[in-house]
Amino acid sequence: MSAGTPSTVPAEPPGLAVTALAGGVGGARFLRGLLAALRTSEDPARQRARVTVIGNTADDITLHGLRISPDLDSVMYTLGGGIDEVRGWGRSAETSGVADELAAYGRTPDWFTLGDKDIATHVVRTQLLAEGATLSEATRVLCERWRPGVDLLPMTDDPVQTHVDLAPVAASDRPADAGEAGDRRVHFQEWWVRLHAAVPARAIVPVGAADARPAPGVLAAVRDADVVVLPPSNPVVSIGTILAVPGIREALRTTAAPVVGVSPVIGGSPVRGMADACLASIGVPTTAGAVAGLYADFLDGWLVAPEDVGGVEARPGLTVRGRPLLMSSPAATRALGAATLDLALELRAPEAAA
Amino acid sequence: MSAGTPSTVPAEPPGLAVTALAGGVGGARFLRGLLAALRTSEDPARQRARVTVIGNTADDITLHGLRISPDLDSVMYTLGGGIDEVRGWGRSAETSGVADELAAYGRTPDWFTLGDKDIATHVVRTQLLAEGATLSEATRVLCERWRPGVDLLPMTDDPVQTHVDLAPVAASDRPADAGEAGDRRVHFQEWWVRLHAAVPARAIVPVGAADARPAPGVLAAVRDADVVVLPPSNPVVSIGTILAVPGIREALRTTAAPVVGVSPVIGGSPVRGMADACLASIGVPTTAGAVAGLYADFLDGWLVAPEDVGGVEARPGLTVRGRPLLMSSPAATRALGAATLDLALELRAPEAAA
Repeated sequence: MSAGTPSTVPAEPPGLAVTALAGGVGGARFLRGLLAALRTSEDPARQRARVTVIGNTADDITLHGLRISPDLDSVMYTLGGGIDEVRGWGRSAETSGVADELAAYGRTPDWFTLGDKDIATHVVRTQLLAEGATLSEATRVLCERWRPGVDLLPMTDDPVQTHVDLAPVAASDRPADAGEAGDRRVHFQEWWVRLHAAVPARAIVPVGAADARPAPGVLAAVRDADVVVLPPSNPVVSIGTILAVPGIREALRTTAAPVVGVSPVIGGSPVRGMADACLASIGVPTTAGAVAGLYADFLDGWLVAPEDVGGVEARPGLTVRGRPLLMSSPAATRALGAATLDLALELRAPEAAA
Repeated sequence: MSAGTPSTVPAEPPGLAVTALAGGVGGARFLRGLLAALRTSEDPARQRARVTVIGNTADDITLHGLRISPDLDSVMYTLGGGIDEVRGWGRSAETSGVADELAAYGRTPDWFTLGDKDIATHVVRTQLLAEGATLSEATRVLCERWRPGVDLLPMTDDPVQTHVDLAPVAASDRPADAGEAGDRRVHFQEWWVRLHAAVPARAIVPVGAADARPAPGVLAAVRDADVVVLPPSNPVVSIGTILAVPGIREALRTTAAPVVGVSPVIGGSPVRGMADACLASIGVPTTAGAVAGLYADFLDGWLVAPEDVGGVEARPGLTVRGRPLLMSSPAATRALGAATLDLALELRAPEAAA
């Protein structure tokens, strides 16, 4: 500032530092509502909020030699305006030129949908990784195009893959397309996409998580946040795998920021997806209260459907609030984002909020 | 054969063993005519001919992390029924979903056309190579789908890339899209596709060729052939690069089979493509006779356009014949294939033909 310039203009209040953990489709949709709530807020701190998203990478899979990061892509496409709004995943106006040819070549697996536009993302990512980039760096390059309005960080740059131990089932009880399913270990995507999670899982194992390091910026994003948000993502295979990376759970426990989550369960059923199959595999009931229990060591606020408020066991330090959870319209989704922020800001330590 | 079965049925004469060296579009089209001539022949030895094609791989390039073998694919698609008949290269009914997205990501280069169907081929090849397959093995897998009716062998499984040393040119003489072209070395595809060979080449260098080994089966295919055919492919960057792989030229010199070629030049102009630019770079005139001179140490028969017969210098052991060379229709192409076979069979040593 040059001499003579008035220096009495008050500094603008800093934007809120919001950090979210996120899986794929549901998390991405919630984040869109959260961003809409921030941008339309009358509170300057919310308007100028910086949002960091820590994305699940345990769904990642390499197919046909292409590295696919379904959850990162769902967040990137949804917030960047490229998502297929009907399916909730993949690119809009998608075509299948490459996939049809791969099938003509008899290449497997053929149960994972790969649109042409989506494949371009995987081609770029695969090339960047082959050239030595980390997944964080590759994600940053991809986001230069999509400008999702958040800093999108993979939970880790190290390989983590969720595998599913299938329970033995009688041949007569197997889904018709389950093939040799039963009593074997498959990649999460095979269980989820090919088997529709219809073969019971005996265990869900985030292979590699114990040795994974949080990606650059992940722990700082939790530690330095003003508020931390858990979207209604799958508590086992999305949020659960992020928490399995050493250091992240500890950061959530020790951050000064309130951690506020949105239940992925309404009245005993998952809001979307097949979270019940995942919860069953770890012996946890499909209830809003049971999911809160998975986060008990760090959760400060919990948004549940109004009818579920009574079912969440009270415990010191946890504020439970009932709100409509269905993200049935942009307005409803934005309202859910606003309610999450409202609860988080209420719960900020008074000295931090001052 | 069990006892009692009549054993007096005369053995069928073996099919002719035909080996061809080939580049891309022109070579592939010629080979289609050659196959048509064989299959419609009344000679049982021609009908049952086994054709081996030794394909140029020095045009190969890796773009966006995908291994592309343009000449092998042109042969495979053309003989397998997947070629774009209008362009003469690439797949028919092609789409550009992936390429448009790669451009949206700002990925370069953007001057090499990659259709979605074609990309599937490169994805399969790249994955097979990454898994440890040789290019020969990958080509065999791809051909399992296309059934081109020939054994398609890469000239080598080792890396060879034709590079072009661009001559310095005044900025005012450069093509508008030549960028910083001039006085530098580029991949052949950049010179051919991006610069349309309009910047003069000071040298054309098959980098890696001196250390490359012929792929499995290549030398035997030349040595054990009944006839060897050179389609009207580019004498420098297609046939020339195949000949640059140590051992192949020697095999052509020493094989008992007649080696018969088809001139890629008619009356001072290349039949197609920009062979003149390639010939100029090695100081060879664009004439049917000059091209024959490049093959002088092994060539037994040379098919040229009728008007070029007089221009080919006579030499002992070389039979020159004038025939219409334009592959302007399936019938004309088949007739050219038949003429090539006729000349080759005439030139077979009497004891071999007996």
